[in-house]
Amino acid sequence: MNTDNVPQAPNETAETSNSGASPRAVDWENPRVAAILTAAAKCFSRSGFSSTTLAEIGKELGLRKSIVHYYFASKAALIHEVQSFTYRKFLDRVRTTLGAAHEGTGAARARRALEALWDALQADQTATGLNIEVWSAARRDPELKRRAASLQQDARQIIDEALNTAGDVIKRPNLEGLPTLVQAVLNGLSIAEVVEGEGVQAKKAYEAFLFILDQALKK
Amino acid sequence: MNTDNVPQAPNETAETSNSGASPRAVDWENPRVAAILTAAAKCFSRSGFSSTTLAEIGKELGLRKSIVHYYFASKAALIHEVQSFTYRKFLDRVRTTLGAAHEGTGAARARRALEALWDALQADQTATGLNIEVWSAARRDPELKRRAASLQQDARQIIDEALNTAGDVIKRPNLEGLPTLVQAVLNGLSIAEVVEGEGVQAKKAYEAFLFILDQALKK
Repeated sequence: MNTDNVPQAPNETAETSNSGASPRAVDWENPRVAAILTAAAKCFSRSGFSSTTLAEIGKELGLRKSIVHYYFASKAALIHEVQSFTYRKFLDRVRTTLGAAHEGTGAARARRALEALWDALQADQTATGLNIEVWSAARRDPELKRRAASLQQDARQIIDEALNTAGDVIKRPNLEGLPTLVQAVLNGLSIAEVVEGEGVQAKKAYEAFLFILDQALKK
Repeated sequence: MNTDNVPQAPNETAETSNSGASPRAVDWENPRVAAILTAAAKCFSRSGFSSTTLAEIGKELGLRKSIVHYYFASKAALIHEVQSFTYRKFLDRVRTTLGAAHEGTGAARARRALEALWDALQADQTATGLNIEVWSAARRDPELKRRAASLQQDARQIIDEALNTAGDVIKRPNLEGLPTLVQAVLNGLSIAEVVEGEGVQAKKAYEAFLFILDQALKK
């Protein structure tokens, strides 16, 4: 990439992002913005927020720090945007996979939807790493927390729809909390894999979850 | 506390902790060591590992930084020890609560054990905050990861025993992964609460889990 080009002005700066649940503060369609966000996700996921510098992120792309700075006024602004960018891409992939899993009915369909979610999460190690950084940093960064909460709600909405098209599952008494539970299982197992590696047999635990859910739904 | 006392030599330094799955590197029975570890847990849980200094931890107790340094040669050594100390205290409480829940049989007993685990985790917000810091930092600190993995395994052993005394639950086919699943649910829901606050209704999700487990175990 030629770092001597005068960068185009971003459509909006990250600082103006105060409207809506998930504001889209910068132009994700701008190839350079997308490249910076992708490189930043990789760096943050690998080294954590506090020890990653804008210069390092630029270096991944052969860009000077000043170019990164042009698009993202601060590391905080970049962190907020990277989180939304990475999670939205992840949710788009989940939606696509779930769309393809819309066959059969009832419990079998719910199982297929949950298997699709598992596969999507396993395939995206950068998103998993970034999530863990976000959970830690969100405890001290209200804007990050607000965005993380909004993204978690969006993900739960997708789970909710997948389970509901699978036969009004969560309208059953006692199962209201199921979308939150599914999300917790996926997040909790991704932590187990990070801390304990493959030895933890997260897949077996997920299969136990699908099994007990199946049993309960068949009643 | 009088900071002018010459501190007693610790039994071992944190640096010699290379044997066993969960080495006990410093003397937890020493009141000053225990006080430093408790204050450090509070500070780390509140501000994260990277922005907490040994001086701040000392300040919590009215101790000079040099005294903290006397017992813990580095912040890394203190982080490793705080994690083990806090998690062991948590597991001791869980064991006590589970001991008291040993009545009834089968599914009802499993349910009571799982309710005890939930209560123990809800009661200890410092441990929850510290866990999230550990999950993030363990990705870049092999010794922290090794200790975290060992503590997770200990916790799973306790869950395993609680479920097994409740009627050989996990010897059933398809339920091998149940202790890992229970742990993932608890960790995942503690994240949901941190990111989304009380609005997320983690308790309802946990009840959905107990409900589907009940249904499956009754078969």
